[in-house]
Order: sequence, then structure tokens, then C-alpha cells
Amino acid sequence: MTDMKIDLNKVRKQVDLIDFRILKLLNERMEFVLRIKRLKEEIADPSREQVVLGNIQRHSQGLISQRFAEKLFNEVISESKRIQGQNLKSIGFQGEHGAYGEVAALTFDNSMVPLPCREFTDVFEAVKSGQIDFGIVPVENSLEGAVTEVSDLLVETGLKVIGEIKLPIHHALLALSETDYREIKAVYSHPQALAQCRGFLSRNNLEPIPFYDTAGAAKMISEASPKSAAAIASKSCAELYNLEIIKDEIEDDKSNFTRFLILARESSVEAGNKCSIIFSTRHEAGTLFAVLKIFSDAGINLTRIESRPIRTDPGKYTFFLDFQGSDRDNKIINVLEQVKQKAVIFKFLGCYREAKL
Amino acid sequence: MTDMKIDLNKVRKQVDLIDFRILKLLNERMEFVLRIKRLKEEIADPSREQVVLGNIQRHSQGLISQRFAEKLFNEVISESKRIQGQNLKSIGFQGEHGAYGEVAALTFDNSMVPLPCREFTDVFEAVKSGQIDFGIVPVENSLEGAVTEVSDLLVETGLKVIGEIKLPIHHALLALSETDYREIKAVYSHPQALAQCRGFLSRNNLEPIPFYDTAGAAKMISEASPKSAAAIASKSCAELYNLEIIKDEIEDDKSNFTRFLILARESSVEAGNKCSIIFSTRHEAGTLFAVLKIFSDAGINLTRIESRPIRTDPGKYTFFLDFQGSDRDNKIINVLEQVKQKAVIFKFLGCYREAKL
Repeated sequence: MTDMKIDLNKVRKQVDLIDFRILKLLNERMEFVLRIKRLKEEIADPSREQVVLGNIQRHSQGLISQRFAEKLFNEVISESKRIQGQNLKSIGFQGEHGAYGEVAALTFDNSMVPLPCREFTDVFEAVKSGQIDFGIVPVENSLEGAVTEVSDLLVETGLKVIGEIKLPIHHALLALSETDYREIKAVYSHPQALAQCRGFLSRNNLEPIPFYDTAGAAKMISEASPKSAAAIASKSCAELYNLEIIKDEIEDDKSNFTRFLILARESSVEAGNKCSIIFSTRHEAGTLFAVLKIFSDAGINLTRIESRPIRTDPGKYTFFLDFQGSDRDNKIINVLEQVKQKAVIFKFLGCYREAKL
Repeated sequence: MTDMKIDLNKVRKQVDLIDFRILKLLNERMEFVLRIKRLKEEIADPSREQVVLGNIQRHSQGLISQRFAEKLFNEVISESKRIQGQNLKSIGFQGEHGAYGEVAALTFDNSMVPLPCREFTDVFEAVKSGQIDFGIVPVENSLEGAVTEVSDLLVETGLKVIGEIKLPIHHALLALSETDYREIKAVYSHPQALAQCRGFLSRNNLEPIPFYDTAGAAKMISEASPKSAAAIASKSCAELYNLEIIKDEIEDDKSNFTRFLILARESSVEAGNKCSIIFSTRHEAGTLFAVLKIFSDAGINLTRIESRPIRTDPGKYTFFLDFQGSDRDNKIINVLEQVKQKAVIFKFLGCYREAKL
């Protein structure tokens, strides 16, 4: 009886894991369904539903009867249509669920539905094509500096910045609930997260193992259950991947934060108090100074200036400038007119509400 | 519009893939549910159902509402109970779905439900513990000889042999439907299957890449979609893993077959015409000959004799003997009595119907 009880509990654990994975897949399905919404004219599409149910029938094998599968997927299809019919706002972030980009998106507006994108460029593309309403991308981190990949995408994009968020970055050590924390030897995470917890790792004699993504590391621990291993990721990954928080806030520098921009196809209709522009000047002595002087003369407070070499034009630079003020203010309108005249390339990214930490 | 159409089709393909994976997981769930049946006293278990629904609620995140998840899993639970309530006979095989063991099981009796087991020892264990009704294991292949791992497990087991099946082994080349067959460069499969198709692979300039399992290779192609790759596996893997048969029967030797034994906790109640025994003799000259003479004198036809060194007792051997005849026949009963007297260890594995090719 005891042996049977042990066997029973073991098999039930496997069933629980399958249920967990089915729920994750259902959520992934609904995320794609939300993306599809804008790509078709009407929500109801009977011919597509027939194709889906045809596939379901064809793949109902083994212990899955066609009758049961059809019943279940009729529910799934009707829920898909219900979700498409709701007026949900979606926001794309780079990484797996639980990534800091998702945490930032929910901090910005927790009524939005965060949708994972593989690369930063996919965030830009999905917003541009209309599959996703908004995008969120990191532009700078207080310890690591500018996110150059995002800077380059901002130069090329036609999207607008409609907001920003400053997210304090707190790392948590996460492991499977059955893992004894004294047994943990290897810790998987993104190289930057590992570097930011260097002190904690060395004090506890833990071996850092670089992984492509923080949330991806948490997901891997959850799915592959490697022995004596843990991940460093956001606290929210614990619930998402069924892991336990061994220790929270293990970063060496508690003041670490990342600034994210919120992207949209259209400029914000609400009034803002901060603007972002991108420009380049002629390659002559004093041209950058001349531009900065315009701001200084008008008494406008710059919050960030950053330069990036233009890859296609060696020796030339693009400048990223953030300043306080509203694009509805005549003083600012006037200043921007003057900057445009000095600049070779000029792009007004957007005016939005300045974020507090 | 054309761009949107392309995007729409791309995202819908992702949705189809998710639906396919959900069905596979549901089937896996029902397989575990069938195993659980024998480990508990009654099918209905309200407290367990509460635990399952509690987990479901806890993991209903993102776009999955608790209401929807609960509705769906109530259907899943009621289907699980329906499956437990049916009088299904299950048979364990080693490998993933689509393995030759599963093909052999369905050839033996296609009313049985084949359940995948990780290792051969798991097949024996699951039958012994009652989680699975029958087991099927390969004992010899016409090209490769005895399956030593299975021989060793047969020596130790208390299970009975209740049948055999001889399965012609035909290999198929499988790839994703979007793969152009002229682009295929790498072919994944179990080393034995690759060796059995050596001529075909070299004629077509294909690089063989060893993989742990034939059906596992098909599954990998389906899930990871590596470029320019195909798998060698049973034809039935095509439907199971949504692959296309590029070419069937690519094995060099068409006469290749594997002999499988069917295992159960109890001996067969039906009359058979073939028996399997295992024995060892004293380590003296002529003892094996003396045993074989008993069969010869009685005019009994031996169909197989195989020896295995006893690992725990170097220099000594265990013999596997198959012969024609029924254990209800007095001549056979008499012969087995004589063998028992000469043998140190003697085990009657079972009497069953001889299989034709």
C-alpha cells in the first residue's frame, strides 16, 4: 500500500506538470489570437474555424477521442473570439514572460496585456504592423549605460515615444520547490544579472553560468529541472514558472535601475512634460555646441545626451537628447525649429510624462 | 493587404502548432490517468479533483481567466474519469510514440492502448506494479542478434511471457512538409537504423547523425524544425509528429525483422504451441549437452538457444531456450521435469502461440 501510495503521488505530480504546461500553451495561443485580431476584418471566421477543427480531428490520436477534442476546442475557439472581442491593449516586450521588460510594462499600465517578442526588432515590427498596440524597450541602465541595439532601432523607426518608466532592478534567486537551498551549486542567468550579483554569488560559493535571458533561465530550471541548480531572475518568475524564491534582492547595488520607453504608432494625445529627439549635425567644429546653446539660451533642462556613431557613415554621429518641457509650449516649439535648421537629420520621437523612480 | 495576409498565415501556423502540442499533452495526461487507475481504490476522488482545480486556478495567468480554465479542466477531469471507467487493456513499450515497439504492440492486438516507457526496465516495473497490464520488449533482431539488456531483465523478472510477435522492420525517411527533399543534408536516427539504411544514405549523399531513438528523432524534427534535416523512423511517426514521408522502405535489407515478447503478471490462460525457458547448469563438462539431449530424445523442435554470461558469477552462463510444444502436453511436462533435475536455476517463462512473419 505504501509503495502504491508513493507511485500514485509520483504519477500525479506528472499530471500536475502536464496541466501546468497545457495552461502555458493555452495562454500562448491566446496571445497569438490577440495578435491576429488586427490582421483580419472580422472576428468570426467560420472557414478558419473549420480548418482548426479539421486539424484537431486529424490529430486526435491515442486516448484522445475526436468527440472530446472537438468539445474542448470549441470552448477554446469561443474563448479566443471572446478575447478578440474585448477592447484589450497589448504591449510587446523582448524576452520570455517574467522578463524585466514585462515587469516594467505592468508598472507602466497594468491593464495592458504584455506579449513576449523574441528580439528587440520584433517589438518594433509588431507595433509597426499593428499586431501589437504598444512596445516597451530598455534604453539605458544605471550600471551598464545605453542599450545600443535599441538606440540603433530608434534611429530607423517611424514609431513614437509616448511614455517612459524607470524600473528598480531587483534580482531574486529561484529554484524548484524540491531543491534544498544548501545543495545549490550552479546559478543560471543573463551575464549582466550574474555580474550584478557577483558579491552574493562569491560569498555563497555559487558558480555563475551564463544564459541567454533571465526569465529564460527560470523557465529552463522549471522545465529541465537540472540538479543543484537555481536561476537569477525577477521575483515574478517564481509564480510564472512554479519556482520558489530562495532569496530576494540579491543584487550588490540596490540603486540599480533601467529606463524603458513606451512606443506606439501615433504620438500621445495627452500632454507631456518631457521630450526625446534624435539629430545629427554637419561634421564641422562647433555644430553640436551650437545646438546645445539653443537649449541653454532658452533655459531648457537637458536630462540625457548620448551619441552613437553612424555605421553607414564613419566619423559621423547621431545624438539622442531628452529634455524637460512640452511640445505644446511655444518656447519648446521655437527651440525645436532652430535645432531643425542646424541639423542634417532631425527626428522628434515624442512628448510624454517624465517618470519618477 | 498582401503583407497582412502573409502575417496572418504565419501567426495561424503558430496557433496550429500550439493546438497540436496541446493535443499531445492531453494524450500524455490521459496515459498517466490510465496508469493511476490501478493505484487507487475508486475512480472518483473529490479531494484530488479539488487539488487539481486549485492548481489550475493558481496557474491561470495572463490571458487565461480562472473561469475559462476551470470550465476546460472540468471537461478534462470528466474525460479522465470516463477513460478510467472503460475496460481498457494497456501495454507498455520502450521509447516514444511511433517506436517499433508500439507498432509491434498494435500488430499483436490493436485494441490495446500502448503506453510509452523510458527504459526497458520501466516496462518490466510498470507491469509488475500493476500500472500497466502488459509489456512488450524486443528479444532479438535478425540482423543485430539478441537484445542483451532485455535478456538480463528476463532472468531477474517474475513476469510471464504470454505471446510473441515478429515485426518486419521498414524504415521511412521523414521530414517537415515545408522541407524540399532535395535540400535534405542531415538525417537523424538511432545508430542501428542509420546502419540499416547505409546504402540509401550514401547513394543520396546524406549525412547520418546518431540520435537516442528513431521515434525520438522524428519528434525532434517536428518540434525543433532544424533546417535541411530529416529523420529515419517507422512510417507511423509521420502522422504522429505531423511529418511527411519522403520515401518508405529505405532499409538496405528488406528481410530485417525483430521478435518481441509480450509480458504479463500471470501466465496465459489460452493454450499455446511454443514455450520459453531460462536455465543454468552446473559448471561441468557435458551438462548443457545433457539438457539438449532430453529435448532431442523426446523429438522436440528447438527454435532458439542463446547463452548469456552471469555477471555476478563469472565463467557461468544462463541459457535461453525456445521450443515448440504446449505446457499442457504430457510429453513436454515430462521433459521439463527432467531439465529441472539437471539445472541449477530453472524458470518457465511461458507458453504462447508461435508468431508467423
